[in-house]
Amino acid sequence: MPRPPIVHHNDSVLSAKAMLRIAVDAMGTDTAPLSEVEGAIQASREGLAEIVLVGPQDLLKRELARKGAQRLPIEIVHASESVTMGDAAAKAFRRKRDSSMQVAARLVRDGKAQGMVSAGNTGAVMTSAKIILGALEGVDRPALAAAFPTSKGRASVLLDVGANVDCKPQHLEQFAIMGEIYYRVIFGAERPRVGLLSIGSEDQKGNELTREAFLRLKELPLKFVGNVEGRDLYNGRVEVIVCDGFIGNVALKISEGLIEVIAALLKESLSSTLTSKMGYMLSRNAFRRFKKRVDYTEYGGAPLLGVRGVCMIAHGSSNAHAIKNAIRVAAEFVEGRVNEKIERELAGAIPARN
Amino acid sequence: MPRPPIVHHNDSVLSAKAMLRIAVDAMGTDTAPLSEVEGAIQASREGLAEIVLVGPQDLLKRELARKGAQRLPIEIVHASESVTMGDAAAKAFRRKRDSSMQVAARLVRDGKAQGMVSAGNTGAVMTSAKIILGALEGVDRPALAAAFPTSKGRASVLLDVGANVDCKPQHLEQFAIMGEIYYRVIFGAERPRVGLLSIGSEDQKGNELTREAFLRLKELPLKFVGNVEGRDLYNGRVEVIVCDGFIGNVALKISEGLIEVIAALLKESLSSTLTSKMGYMLSRNAFRRFKKRVDYTEYGGAPLLGVRGVCMIAHGSSNAHAIKNAIRVAAEFVEGRVNEKIERELAGAIPARN
Repeated sequence: MPRPPIVHHNDSVLSAKAMLRIAVDAMGTDTAPLSEVEGAIQASREGLAEIVLVGPQDLLKRELARKGAQRLPIEIVHASESVTMGDAAAKAFRRKRDSSMQVAARLVRDGKAQGMVSAGNTGAVMTSAKIILGALEGVDRPALAAAFPTSKGRASVLLDVGANVDCKPQHLEQFAIMGEIYYRVIFGAERPRVGLLSIGSEDQKGNELTREAFLRLKELPLKFVGNVEGRDLYNGRVEVIVCDGFIGNVALKISEGLIEVIAALLKESLSSTLTSKMGYMLSRNAFRRFKKRVDYTEYGGAPLLGVRGVCMIAHGSSNAHAIKNAIRVAAEFVEGRVNEKIERELAGAIPARN
Repeated sequence: MPRPPIVHHNDSVLSAKAMLRIAVDAMGTDTAPLSEVEGAIQASREGLAEIVLVGPQDLLKRELARKGAQRLPIEIVHASESVTMGDAAAKAFRRKRDSSMQVAARLVRDGKAQGMVSAGNTGAVMTSAKIILGALEGVDRPALAAAFPTSKGRASVLLDVGANVDCKPQHLEQFAIMGEIYYRVIFGAERPRVGLLSIGSEDQKGNELTREAFLRLKELPLKFVGNVEGRDLYNGRVEVIVCDGFIGNVALKISEGLIEVIAALLKESLSSTLTSKMGYMLSRNAFRRFKKRVDYTEYGGAPLLGVRGVCMIAHGSSNAHAIKNAIRVAAEFVEGRVNEKIERELAGAIPARN
């Protein structure tokens, strides 16, 4: 496969010091490359990282120029193809070798960037990252970790939401260790509580998988609070929740679906009478704040934990702000040495038994 | 175990014609027996059924008298014990033989009522109903079916939400047949669409269980639309969704948790400034209508499909209106001959292959 040419957008301004570099797949969002370019500009202006924008070079050059961002330390690396939301992950991987997401992953693999951000087709990004970057020592299955808002203000993190189906107990054990480290580093909690998603909080509740995983999790050197229930995702009882990737995917999509229907019903209810219409207008800003709080793109997307290098997957509907947040989290992930900690803690915690 | 005495509250008004009778566990809700008694009175006034209220006889007599309902066709059957929300299901079954839910189930088993309604401890009601009533011919595992509101207006039904964990493909097949009949009869749809809850809508997406179940479901004489995703629970794409009871329980509790946190965040957002506070006050009625639409107690609780007789399980927080709705659905369930249809259609659809 052809190696993509590296195009320096504006060499002169690239900082000499070893600032960390994040590759941004510029062709992932529904509004690509607008949100990506704008998000990269914001991240760059805030000094979060040096950015490598990956995508059609002429298009990206034009966009950067149009925004007057020529002097920022933003590099462009050309990629001639894009994966669409309709592409099947495995097929896209084989057929679109020069896709922006694969090129971004290769930049990370080759040390030209320390992390990548993509808002593209989640399955395809995961496939690209798993194959191109490979797994960390001790990790059988990289896991996608999504953050949810809670009524306590701080987020809870659920993993795997990335469709690792038919998990074995040892996979959930690895998810627990990876998720706990991620939470410590990115959300700044010293001893995050870890729960196992089940159908009742009593120890013996659950299915075959969770009952076996329970026994393993309680031996780990972390703050395991036992079984938790679906409602605990949102009530702040626990910071990290582990589950099979089928369950996690269903949980994520149910939440998205419910938020959509509530927003629609609310709007409908509130525009049905003149008084409530006035009320809606008066409370519009409050609604915006509210929607922002339940919007998980605020948390900068979901990291694929357990791959070599850093891979943040953002929502396809991400705006520039969400892309910037994902870049920020990717940078914190690198600076916080999450992967080193994962390998060290997996080696320390698990081989004694497995 | 002692057979409970049958106490006729007011024999003279019991109708001679064979109106159907629903036994109501009067000790299930958080406000028991107030919501149950009031719900029974409403149901009785609307002529939905003759009601048998099951619980402490003196208490129930007093409540009915206090409400001036002595002349309604409401009978009281004494039960000396109540199951609490904290009781473990199996233990409650063995230790509290004279609990209101067991007494209600025995009335159904013995033909003294055609259906029962309980808002008590869900696990304990299911255990009582499964053991006392037994399963219909052809049903391996009775399943709890919950209704959800959708943005299209009509409800969707998810089963199993009753913790039938580690299901086999043939269980999901039975759930599909039972759920489809329930939807047809209670929601009045001629050919409800049936989906299999998975992690993508393509045929091959899913885990071991769903991939095998998929092959069985597509052979059934019903409108199977294939795999559906978590978000389809709320968007009206499909009427009946089947899944393993672990997934269904998580789906239900995540939805409940999310609705709670959204309500809390919304209230907080809307009372943070004077303008939005005014907006909130002006739109209060709209909020009430909205909350009513996402409140699944509106649908009258969840039936335990596949047991002999009818068992509707209502939410512990049910008010009188929800109890009345559950009584109405129980009556429609009997009149619609749901169980006969289940046995007939299971016999017709499945033995050819199993």
